[in-house]
Amino acid sequence: MSVSTLAADQSVCAPLPVLGRDVTVPLVTGGEVAYAALDYAASAPALQRVWDDVAAYAPYYGSVHRGAGYLSQLSTDLFENARRTVAEFLGCREGDQVVFTRSTTDSLNLLADALPADCQVFVFETEHHASLLPWRNARVTYLDAPRSPHQAVETLERALADRDPHGPALVCVTGASNVTGELWPVRELAAAAHAHGARIVLDAAQLAPHHPVSVADLDVDWVAFSGHKLYAPFGSGVLAGRADWLRAAEPYLAGGGASRKVSRREDGGVDVEWHDSAARHEAGSPNVIGAYAVASACRALTEAGFDTLVAREQHLVRTVREGLSDVPQVRFLSLFGDDAPRVGVLSFVVEGWNSSHFAAALSAEYGIGVRDGLFCAHPLLRTLLGSDPQAQGECGSPEAAPGEKSLNAIRVSFGAGTPDEHVERFVRAVRELVTDGAKWNYRTEDGRCVPDTSA
Amino acid sequence: MSVSTLAADQSVCAPLPVLGRDVTVPLVTGGEVAYAALDYAASAPALQRVWDDVAAYAPYYGSVHRGAGYLSQLSTDLFENARRTVAEFLGCREGDQVVFTRSTTDSLNLLADALPADCQVFVFETEHHASLLPWRNARVTYLDAPRSPHQAVETLERALADRDPHGPALVCVTGASNVTGELWPVRELAAAAHAHGARIVLDAAQLAPHHPVSVADLDVDWVAFSGHKLYAPFGSGVLAGRADWLRAAEPYLAGGGASRKVSRREDGGVDVEWHDSAARHEAGSPNVIGAYAVASACRALTEAGFDTLVAREQHLVRTVREGLSDVPQVRFLSLFGDDAPRVGVLSFVVEGWNSSHFAAALSAEYGIGVRDGLFCAHPLLRTLLGSDPQAQGECGSPEAAPGEKSLNAIRVSFGAGTPDEHVERFVRAVRELVTDGAKWNYRTEDGRCVPDTSA
Repeated sequence: MSVSTLAADQSVCAPLPVLGRDVTVPLVTGGEVAYAALDYAASAPALQRVWDDVAAYAPYYGSVHRGAGYLSQLSTDLFENARRTVAEFLGCREGDQVVFTRSTTDSLNLLADALPADCQVFVFETEHHASLLPWRNARVTYLDAPRSPHQAVETLERALADRDPHGPALVCVTGASNVTGELWPVRELAAAAHAHGARIVLDAAQLAPHHPVSVADLDVDWVAFSGHKLYAPFGSGVLAGRADWLRAAEPYLAGGGASRKVSRREDGGVDVEWHDSAARHEAGSPNVIGAYAVASACRALTEAGFDTLVAREQHLVRTVREGLSDVPQVRFLSLFGDDAPRVGVLSFVVEGWNSSHFAAALSAEYGIGVRDGLFCAHPLLRTLLGSDPQAQGECGSPEAAPGEKSLNAIRVSFGAGTPDEHVERFVRAVRELVTDGAKWNYRTEDGRCVPDTSA
Repeated sequence: MSVSTLAADQSVCAPLPVLGRDVTVPLVTGGEVAYAALDYAASAPALQRVWDDVAAYAPYYGSVHRGAGYLSQLSTDLFENARRTVAEFLGCREGDQVVFTRSTTDSLNLLADALPADCQVFVFETEHHASLLPWRNARVTYLDAPRSPHQAVETLERALADRDPHGPALVCVTGASNVTGELWPVRELAAAAHAHGARIVLDAAQLAPHHPVSVADLDVDWVAFSGHKLYAPFGSGVLAGRADWLRAAEPYLAGGGASRKVSRREDGGVDVEWHDSAARHEAGSPNVIGAYAVASACRALTEAGFDTLVAREQHLVRTVREGLSDVPQVRFLSLFGDDAPRVGVLSFVVEGWNSSHFAAALSAEYGIGVRDGLFCAHPLLRTLLGSDPQAQGECGSPEAAPGEKSLNAIRVSFGAGTPDEHVERFVRAVRELVTDGAKWNYRTEDGRCVPDTSA
């Protein structure tokens, strides 16, 4: 299927307006082109709506939970309303807490700090580092990469059946892989966890921007996501879910806002009473602009409708897959098979190409921003590439010669703000690079692969 | 000295433009008035310049340290340049690290996590909770409130002389009190700490927005501050200083960005190599807008010139002090005496008034935003008020009757964006409330003191 016939298949809605849609960038081959931001999985542009909301609020900014003035009270209401908006967006249950954090990484580190004593943690090796690494104070069982959703559930069930059945346990699983974009069987994994007396946290960093998430429907205990991947890049993330472990835990950060009362003891020490609400884990002045931006994004996505957003994104996924289906040098990475359901995140290697070189050419010659590397998911990349990932060789050096084994990969990712043209240009660029090679020479400078302009 | 004669003393520069300077708020007595934001010590409005810089950058937003695209590389450069700008603003030494955190609270919790084993911590009871509480894994010595800068140094020296001289030790001290605004003898305390083999971290949350700070000149080991008090309320703060303890510590958060290489071991476990740079403690996608906003504020304050900013702020401090000097019902809170050098932060109680009631009247009848309460510094408030601070009684209830002991205090604070008119209005409002009483009735609703509009 050619790109030109794909272009006719535009029955789906227009992209949501995002910042940067008019930004042009220079090409090494001359001229400028509209920047194609195809690295949403790393961080997405702000929705125009989110930016407009932030800009409208910013003059009314005031300290939250702390002031007697009009703007402080307005800001406090806005911050607490943001919490309610997020709870609704996530389909939280009565009694669930919504804690504003800085990111998914922060959310999962907070949960890791809140684990009960002797908690066992189960996590697939296929997770990105944010899900793989935070469990430093727990006994962690790393589960081998499954090759189907069914095998994922089986693997988890087997591991849970082997565990000490009396202690607390937590399963941490992604909703959509940050490398392959593949959807994980969250509902089934949650059922397996609960059947074995374990709890489960859903890492929705890559799921929530692309797909509806309901804590109650999926029956997960917690969910974590990042504002900056949800079109709200203002430094806030979310951990939402069951209150009991969070209330029982020591405050994540110690400081004002988390403390209800502090007094010196007779012996010179200090006694602290901590809050039981979400504030317990939000010490310091909250990032109210960040939280408001997340809530604005939740509202915007809900109003646009996920049915429409998913349809549009699946159209773009098809544009990539079908547009490159007859290019044998391009191998997409997959755990669950090429046809597995996925969000708009695809990774691939190109036979004969150093991935950094390829990504640099996409940027310099086509104005397309993708990511190359190991995507903060090293064990998964080793599994998918069938080799030990390591530092990429010099860009443009012999390692980049045809036939060289791919040492890392290229990821293209998109979402609600991506116009068809960006993805169509990407497909055309990949085809041209594979067929004709790069038009320019590249070299490594400060660890980056850059066009060699010395000639 | 009357307010009208003070108004003539306007030889100092104009305020720096801030967001919200045109915002009006309704008065309970009818009409609207320009909002006087006098709660800078809790959180300051964004400088217009900071907002403009953020708005200009936002369309160019891209993932930091992670992408091959033009905007990712631009954003990475901008983020790392922000680090250099902050280092310069703080007068850092060669080899110091600048870690972007979310706030002062976060910065000090990070440092607390990075303490060497068996570290002793020394902190005055007069600190706010962000400095008082993070040292959960250390042996903490709380020092009694000093009544002069000299006594502060003496108190610290005595405590350090008594300590186990062989282990590591850290002193944590504020540069300017968040309650009294008084300047602390940082240089002398740093010398005392070092003379006894201890290190020192400067909490510059209230100092940096008002006063030049030089890590090298003050000879402190670390400094912490918050963007949101430095006219950059976008969710970022800073910890800057010596690299050795930071490099030796476990990463603050575990996740991508902090990890250089992750691999599975033969036994099924996971090995991690962590970065040694600031990235070690910045896991997750950095808040690049927040960091850029902080850097923008640093540049704006440097270019405006602290000599000018300090002169202007001191003029406003005098406006308050002299404007209320003949109102005996107003008692300013002070550790070091009424004439001690201070930044634009003053707390006071009003004889016969419940502080929440007074603050609510300032807001509802004059459009002035201050803060009432205990300012996340409970032990200090107990010392200053000479009574055990406790939850305020019902606003407008008998506790507010004349002669009732003040249970908490009112804080007025301002900075680079404050026009004279705000402070002059504040002085006039305090005088009128003390003389004539509030024009309206107030009641407590959801923990807030609000105008009673039920009549």
